[in-house]
Amino acid sequence: MAGILDLGSRLVSVRATVPLVHCITNYVTVNDVANILLAAGGSPIMSDDVEDAPEITRICGGLVINIGTLNARTIPAMHAAGKAACEAGHPVLLDPVGAGASSLRTSTAVALIDELDLACIRANASEMRTLVAGSSTTRGVDAALGDAITDGTLQEAARSACEFAREKACVVAVSGAIDLVADGERAFAIRNGDAMMSGITGSGCMLSALTDAYLVAGGDDQLASVVAAFCMMGIAGERARAATESRSAGTSTFRMLLIDEISTMTREVLEEGARYEQVI
Amino acid sequence: MAGILDLGSRLVSVRATVPLVHCITNYVTVNDVANILLAAGGSPIMSDDVEDAPEITRICGGLVINIGTLNARTIPAMHAAGKAACEAGHPVLLDPVGAGASSLRTSTAVALIDELDLACIRANASEMRTLVAGSSTTRGVDAALGDAITDGTLQEAARSACEFAREKACVVAVSGAIDLVADGERAFAIRNGDAMMSGITGSGCMLSALTDAYLVAGGDDQLASVVAAFCMMGIAGERARAATESRSAGTSTFRMLLIDEISTMTREVLEEGARYEQVI
Amino acid sequence: MAGILDLGSRLVSVRATVPLVHCITNYVTVNDVANILLAAGGSPIMSDDVEDAPEITRICGGLVINIGTLNARTIPAMHAAGKAACEAGHPVLLDPVGAGASSLRTSTAVALIDELDLACIRANASEMRTLVAGSSTTRGVDAALGDAITDGTLQEAARSACEFAREKACVVAVSGAIDLVADGERAFAIRNGDAMMSGITGSGCMLSALTDAYLVAGGDDQLASVVAAFCMMGIAGERARAATESRSAGTSTFRMLLIDEISTMTREVLEEGARYEQVI
Repeated sequence: MAGILDLGSRLVSVRATVPLVHCITNYVTVNDVANILLAAGGSPIMSDDVEDAPEITRICGGLVINIGTLNARTIPAMHAAGKAACEAGHPVLLDPVGAGASSLRTSTAVALIDELDLACIRANASEMRTLVAGSSTTRGVDAALGDAITDGTLQEAARSACEFAREKACVVAVSGAIDLVADGERAFAIRNGDAMMSGITGSGCMLSALTDAYLVAGGDDQLASVVAAFCMMGIAGERARAATESRSAGTSTFRMLLIDEISTMTREVLEEGARYEQVI
Repeated sequence: MAGILDLGSRLVSVRATVPLVHCITNYVTVNDVANILLAAGGSPIMSDDVEDAPEITRICGGLVINIGTLNARTIPAMHAAGKAACEAGHPVLLDPVGAGASSLRTSTAVALIDELDLACIRANASEMRTLVAGSSTTRGVDAALGDAITDGTLQEAARSACEFAREKACVVAVSGAIDLVADGERAFAIRNGDAMMSGITGSGCMLSALTDAYLVAGGDDQLASVVAAFCMMGIAGERARAATESRSAGTSTFRMLLIDEISTMTREVLEEGARYEQVI
Repeated sequence: MAGILDLGSRLVSVRATVPLVHCITNYVTVNDVANILLAAGGSPIMSDDVEDAPEITRICGGLVINIGTLNARTIPAMHAAGKAACEAGHPVLLDPVGAGASSLRTSTAVALIDELDLACIRANASEMRTLVAGSSTTRGVDAALGDAITDGTLQEAARSACEFAREKACVVAVSGAIDLVADGERAFAIRNGDAMMSGITGSGCMLSALTDAYLVAGGDDQLASVVAAFCMMGIAGERARAATESRSAGTSTFRMLLIDEISTMTREVLEEGARYEQVI
């Protein structure tokens, strides 16, 4: 059944238009990121040299900036490519891996948010709190995003996410047991996914890249595109977990099956499996 | 059955001599590259620091330069290691990933071709056209390599590839639905492979590394060594695709099975499965 | 059955305490390293920028320095993070990949050994010999570590390893068909493992990371923690090999199953499968 948002047409659109996504991403999970983009129907290009990245980004449809293994050489490339992508009107997604864990990560993420016209920030609750504290001019907005989101904190977290999204004029997407995705006006909670996704590296990085592909291929309703990507990833995780257990297998098999599920997912599976609700 | 070229003995030779291949390669697919070299019977070493790379390359048998994630730090290492490998008489293979997509990639690839005594250039048709346009002094040679090779354009493309190979005194290997491999005198078309190979990242990078291992272990007939590597990779793709479908699995399973097929391939499977023909 | 050393409680302790391990490691096998840490029950963080790495290491429990793709940018980060980790009292493990293969690798490894208060050096016999020759002030100690360890050379190698361990005040762990693990007073031989582990890239890198997780979670008996990690990895290799053969699969399936086995290993499997003996 189709829900409030038309998720299935977005899956079809990604497969039909093959969005080309430029990724400046960490070297830990870069192979999974490239493979999930291909599995979803997109196409990845990686380039992180300050001379090369702006030119590469211009021939793409979107840009993912993931600061997971940022360094003195790649940070200028993030800024340069980010500017070029914004000038070209491409959806730019920031994944502020480890923001809050070191001053370089926090300051880099905050600087990118302040400088770029982002389409989406995708982070976990802890990273998002750091960004809000470091970047928001609104006092008190950070409190509700400080911890993992539960049913008890969902409403308050959704208000905070909406406020931050409005201030930064982008979609704010917080991953966790319950995901929360908000723009300045609406917020959706997503209840797909499986705990085994945190038993492998790369679930978050892959989700970021997938989300940007959906933003590139999606229409004007960017929030719906982000919800579609989150539901797709979560459903893939649920199905991969079930298949892993039926084989009595471990986490590496799960990782393979997770990408398999993305590559074989149909519009029907996405629409039937999506569990999301509008909170605001 | 054995064909015109003795491919099977080359497979045996790689497994018997364990060619040590130095790879300066992109970080997206580097793990697959290392694993396919091991699966084929070779041994990989990665080193991309300008101080380290020339010394490492001297203890190896061959060098692969893959510019997929080139940067200001690694480009000098490509030149330095390339020179050291040439001085040592090692087969150097260039994989000009993304040539044509940015000026840095194009100029780096052209500079390496002009400077080094390459054994092989392995690229897709679009990249090869860029190289011919940027590096060849022969007018018009690029036209026939502009698009994916089909039966209709095969003869003309083969003449162009031969011409470029003669000019650069190396094997020119163009990957596509039909592969084309040429030296200055002969050209072979290879019809192995499966479309699912482009559904994962790394098929091209892996093929480049595999090809260099075959060049290191092979005899004087470098063209035959390249054909052997291309047939092996294509057959592995065909078999992995069949196994993936029999499991109703997706692209990540395919990726695993592709390397599995390389590791278990026998001389008989290679010789029986190879589908190639001499065009010139 | 429990052996001389209580290995099983160490497995339980890693899963219970989730040791956070900072890895400065090569980009070839970094994904496998991260995934095996998660599979074992730990948690990985990668950071190799000189400004970022010392701060990241302080919030972790241990540090792995793997010089597999060292470069001018990351070597200062290895030193800076190493000092920070030592100051914080974290177990620092050095994996001197390629020591002896180039002067930069040898000199970097020796400098790190001389400068840092390492908890463990994990290497193959050839690398260890290079380190002893370059770093030890004891003449003749290197001879016995020159080749792969066999039953015939085990006793002599164990004495050399103990001597080097005493001089450097750390655990010396030599991987091979027979592994040898020594501190200044005791030495253990470990006979777990399978030859297929050298048919994939990353077995050594993964073992290094796993070992550091065990050092972080383990108690005062660091030698026992290292033996536990080595037995666990070896048993996983044996079981993955058996499962690979039962599927008539290849090396890439083996790689997946190896990490699967780590993720599903129980205390009982570890204790029953461990094959080690005290040599000194």
